Amino acid sequence: MFFASDNAGRVHPKVMEALVEANEGFAQPYGADPIMQDVRAKLRDIFEAPQAAVYLVATGTAANSIALATIGQPWQTVFCSPVAHIQEDECNAPEFYSGGAKLTLVGDGDKMTAPALHAAIGREETRGVHGAQRGPVSVTQVTERGSVYSLDEIKALCDVAKSFDVPVHLDGARFANAQVALGCSAADMTWKAGVDVVSFGGTKNGLMGVEAVILFDPSKAWEFELRRKRGAHLFSKHRYLSVQMAAYLRDDLWLDSARTANANCARLANGLADAGAHLLYEPQANMIFADFPRAAHQRLHEAGAVYYVWEGQLDGEDPQELLTARLVCDWSITHDQIDQFVEILKG
Amino acid sequence: MFFASDNAGRVHPKVMEALVEANEGFAQPYGADPIMQDVRAKLRDIFEAPQAAVYLVATGTAANSIALATIGQPWQTVFCSPVAHIQEDECNAPEFYSGGAKLTLVGDGDKMTAPALHAAIGREETRGVHGAQRGPVSVTQVTERGSVYSLDEIKALCDVAKSFDVPVHLDGARFANAQVALGCSAADMTWKAGVDVVSFGGTKNGLMGVEAVILFDPSKAWEFELRRKRGAHLFSKHRYLSVQMAAYLRDDLWLDSARTANANCARLANGLADAGAHLLYEPQANMIFADFPRAAHQRLHEAGAVYYVWEGQLDGEDPQELLTARLVCDWSITHDQIDQFVEILKG
Amino acid sequence: MFFASDNAGRVHPKVMEALVEANEGFAQPYGADPIMQDVRAKLRDIFEAPQAAVYLVATGTAANSIALATIGQPWQTVFCSPVAHIQEDECNAPEFYSGGAKLTLVGDGDKMTAPALHAAIGREETRGVHGAQRGPVSVTQVTERGSVYSLDEIKALCDVAKSFDVPVHLDGARFANAQVALGCSAADMTWKAGVDVVSFGGTKNGLMGVEAVILFDPSKAWEFELRRKRGAHLFSKHRYLSVQMAAYLRDDLWLDSARTANANCARLANGLADAGAHLLYEPQANMIFADFPRAAHQRLHEAGAVYYVWEGQLDGEDPQELLTARLVCDWSITHDQIDQFVEILKG
Amino acid sequence: MFFASDNAGRVHPKVMEALVEANEGFAQPYGADPIMQDVRAKLRDIFEAPQAAVYLVATGTAANSIALATIGQPWQTVFCSPVAHIQEDECNAPEFYSGGAKLTLVGDGDKMTAPALHAAIGREETRGVHGAQRGPVSVTQVTERGSVYSLDEIKALCDVAKSFDVPVHLDGARFANAQVALGCSAADMTWKAGVDVVSFGGTKNGLMGVEAVILFDPSKAWEFELRRKRGAHLFSKHRYLSVQMAAYLRDDLWLDSARTANANCARLANGLADAGAHLLYEPQANMIFADFPRAAHQRLHEAGAVYYVWEGQLDGEDPQELLTARLVCDWSITHDQIDQFVEILKG
Repeated sequence: MFFASDNAGRVHPKVMEALVEANEGFAQPYGADPIMQDVRAKLRDIFEAPQAAVYLVATGTAANSIALATIGQPWQTVFCSPVAHIQEDECNAPEFYSGGAKLTLVGDGDKMTAPALHAAIGREETRGVHGAQRGPVSVTQVTERGSVYSLDEIKALCDVAKSFDVPVHLDGARFANAQVALGCSAADMTWKAGVDVVSFGGTKNGLMGVEAVILFDPSKAWEFELRRKRGAHLFSKHRYLSVQMAAYLRDDLWLDSARTANANCARLANGLADAGAHLLYEPQANMIFADFPRAAHQRLHEAGAVYYVWEGQLDGEDPQELLTARLVCDWSITHDQIDQFVEILKG
Repeated sequence: MFFASDNAGRVHPKVMEALVEANEGFAQPYGADPIMQDVRAKLRDIFEAPQAAVYLVATGTAANSIALATIGQPWQTVFCSPVAHIQEDECNAPEFYSGGAKLTLVGDGDKMTAPALHAAIGREETRGVHGAQRGPVSVTQVTERGSVYSLDEIKALCDVAKSFDVPVHLDGARFANAQVALGCSAADMTWKAGVDVVSFGGTKNGLMGVEAVILFDPSKAWEFELRRKRGAHLFSKHRYLSVQMAAYLRDDLWLDSARTANANCARLANGLADAGAHLLYEPQANMIFADFPRAAHQRLHEAGAVYYVWEGQLDGEDPQELLTARLVCDWSITHDQIDQFVEILKG
Repeated sequence: MFFASDNAGRVHPKVMEALVEANEGFAQPYGADPIMQDVRAKLRDIFEAPQAAVYLVATGTAANSIALATIGQPWQTVFCSPVAHIQEDECNAPEFYSGGAKLTLVGDGDKMTAPALHAAIGREETRGVHGAQRGPVSVTQVTERGSVYSLDEIKALCDVAKSFDVPVHLDGARFANAQVALGCSAADMTWKAGVDVVSFGGTKNGLMGVEAVILFDPSKAWEFELRRKRGAHLFSKHRYLSVQMAAYLRDDLWLDSARTANANCARLANGLADAGAHLLYEPQANMIFADFPRAAHQRLHEAGAVYYVWEGQLDGEDPQELLTARLVCDWSITHDQIDQFVEILKG
Repeated sequence: MFFASDNAGRVHPKVMEALVEANEGFAQPYGADPIMQDVRAKLRDIFEAPQAAVYLVATGTAANSIALATIGQPWQTVFCSPVAHIQEDECNAPEFYSGGAKLTLVGDGDKMTAPALHAAIGREETRGVHGAQRGPVSVTQVTERGSVYSLDEIKALCDVAKSFDVPVHLDGARFANAQVALGCSAADMTWKAGVDVVSFGGTKNGLMGVEAVILFDPSKAWEFELRRKRGAHLFSKHRYLSVQMAAYLRDDLWLDSARTANANCARLANGLADAGAHLLYEPQANMIFADFPRAAHQRLHEAGAVYYVWEGQLDGEDPQELLTARLVCDWSITHDQIDQFVEILKG
């Protein structure tokens, strides 16, 4: 019963098989392997973006930080949600990679709204050379609270960004989960809406550790490569990144895995609701925040369930006090585990 | 009628005289001049801090940024007011000098409160290695809205900082204005309250361009010197910085100038109130934010008054709409200028 | 016939098997997996360093850059060979991670000598605050020309470093190759000689992409963790790094693979000598620089041999002109491939 | 008898008078003062560069570092002399401001030669993404050993730079001394030879602390302004920088002062030669390196002469051992002081 994160599950068997198969002989290092050529072509195809620059790195923080540094400047500020991964979970990596850019937090929820973004960007750079200059907008899709921006919402944010002539980055650590939730194409959710650069996640959806960065405008491709190299994120044995991504994209494995994860989450959400838990956000992808009594939390932990108590103390007094759980489902969690969790919750 | 800022007035004649007097022969460069020895001794005396490390730089942003970089780390976050100079007016200089630290904005006013600071620091670093780590607290005294923290308020903020084991920086670009407003000693307002490092301003109070940085714990003095040098803020002809600060401290010129500036401001505030303007903050030092009708603003601008219309558009339609003025008084503004301003305001 | 680098070969089958075996269920992310505990214990055991801090990253550049940033300061200079990987092959990653430190190149060969190091360190910091300050010494073992420092040579360099009170880093991208060449223990080659921090390579010796960093003095361990995280080099699915290193260390696989690689290299060196090629450096580990005529290079390239022509142009005129080849052997090259190479060379 | 540096003399009386005169009323801060407009126009006129962007900072290190960061990139290397001020005397400020660029040292003398520069630039970036990329060339004129590049030499260096498509920076801390030595125009020594950006020094030639940066191609002007601001080098009371530079340029004061300094140096050089000292470099501007016996050094120091013993120990045994003196003349040294120095040297 592991619901702590989708970053701790096993590698999908098809991906592992592909790794084993690729383990023959020598391959040109540093991204010059032939599999990478296929990956690039395949991602351009999926994104309907034949000119896009496509690169692989091994962590989501690398994807986000190098992407933002490439499209921004050190004297700028990046606009993002106050709960964005780049703000809360990257130990100032965006600031480090950018050479000292700032992050401006927009609104107080997990989703930025277009009016709040407009107000925030409008405020910046009213001080000429003295204030931080307007920089990239970073949209986290799926959000860190499990919500999914609609296509209209993404487009509205991009329109605001364009009106101020700043680029848009999409942190898609859970890109596939969002895409299957929306039932749209990869292009719909990105450049057709106005997104300039995407962190296209794989690690949380069955890979060992690979994320793609896709720059729809390839004019800064070489700069990205230099930033990746000096960030120490260019892998010599790159074929083992390439082959993971190749397997991920083959026969829609990435979408199937995300569908499974989202369905697992929906099953859990239904069970939670049945059991009387209160869901804080409408679960649209594979993450749930839910309130239920301390006693139930304690039963679950004793039974070996692993997840974060997001708000509240597990070892408090009142057994009826509501504590918030964060519950994340990946593709590999079984129905049995979900149902067992719900049973224990019901007590 | 120049009320735009206290950073645009002339150098105090006594300071200019001292510069002229010091302009003889050769002097050891880079702070090894004998006048600097006197300045160091005098500031240690004023601050009742015989062990303090004392350095001069030429801009307030340099003082703040180098001080914060010295007492913080790149993976930390600095806690400050959302309207702090380091947040709004230094084009990411603190982020640059620190190597990519973050700024966490505390509360929504110009003053941080101890409970808000406690909540903000408490929130950080709950994510282990993933989140920004807790770093220095920076207190702006006088605030950027013209308010003055009381000694109790400073002490309460420092107590919170100490409870989390983080150091406190005081941005004293208007240190003297605050000190005369509070009627306390320099030690009272700093280390006796728990402050670790001070940016001690001079430029806004009659100098050409000199700020002191005072580190009460000298253990990082050499690191400060290296950071100042690589920031290109170590002056070869340092004697001309030393002599400005020496003249500033001689015979309490710094306090007298600040008293004059604050009195000028009080005179203006009284005049504004008489004229029916609404003061947004209680003016305690030398800065006023006041609302009065567009028509009055227009009369003042036509008469050559120089100041910022902080909120609202000068060239709008409704002559009765209230626009906010920011009005700053330095020591050199005359009573005539103040009274003339009030007369024109009255119409 | 792939002799271009040891960074392009396949993952050792035992390592791949271990990856497959570890691919079950969930594991705590970010280095909290149980396999990492074994790895840490095992490396402490191998290095006879029960207090050492042990971390994994995925690239050699990450290991070097984060290690050097942790033991140095931005205002310092790192002393290294002019052909060190950190100087020539990391696109300023050490400068980036350190926040702007300098590299001072010692001597003009691949090995630093103690007298040259003494002279170089002595020269620095004679200018007080104006010059770069003395920082870490970085020793590349095996050197980038295939030479191996003797234990006495390492000790002599460390003694110089200690006399100036600066720490020593050992870039051991080919640590195992050096150790088997010297027939010493890991402790002999590191802390017993005076080394403070080691980049312990695995990728060039049969892993997919894992290097360990070992800090014998653990006092900066937490700083290393923060620098790794903000460098985006902390892996969520860390178990797949752990298990590679665990397999590498099990039953001396790391030493056996290095022995095989070095023996392959010796076989090739003998063949080259037989064929009349001139070896520029005595090949002690798994890398050879050899001169032979253009015509032979052309024959080899036509036959599909892959390696770098280090000096000279393959498509020049004079067939007898000597061009320099760089030839690297990993553990996976077969005797047949080596012998075939030599045969073609002989013509 | 102060010959230690030209960074320790007094401000020229005409400059000080101008400062006093400018000390009336209020002036727009941050470079918006009317004097700056005159300075900009005057420098464009002197440099015959009507489109040039012109900025003032207060230290030479700021001028160099911000200029180089503006025309270079963090992943590049700057080419300079091994004795360049940016290499030896700025405590890694260029590395800091550039975000981690490298410096590649060209040749082993104070002057770079075109062939050595060609070889050095040619070597870089042969490793694709792995090596530091080719960046700006920085030429120090006057060199740190008192030599002056001829116009042909500068042009040859610029031609090499242009052939590799990298920009050229001229560190003109002693620009005026070089110009009068060459008897050329400011345009001849800069853009007409191929220089892109100039640090135009004032501090070593009679100013209190002002250097201009001139970008002949203004396309990066705004970036320079942002880098200056976040480097904390934008002065609020900017008029006091402007007025220094205005006085410096008025009636050729800058050239007259440099002529005086150079003539002082020639007088000293003649005296030294008369006294049997050996000059290491032909003194072309205002700096001499000369060998003479320890006994003479000791006499001079006892008599109060101030200068650096560049090589050798003042308090050694053999009175006849030759020690190297560095002797710098500014405009303010008197003939009496020079002659007295020579007399004491003669013994």
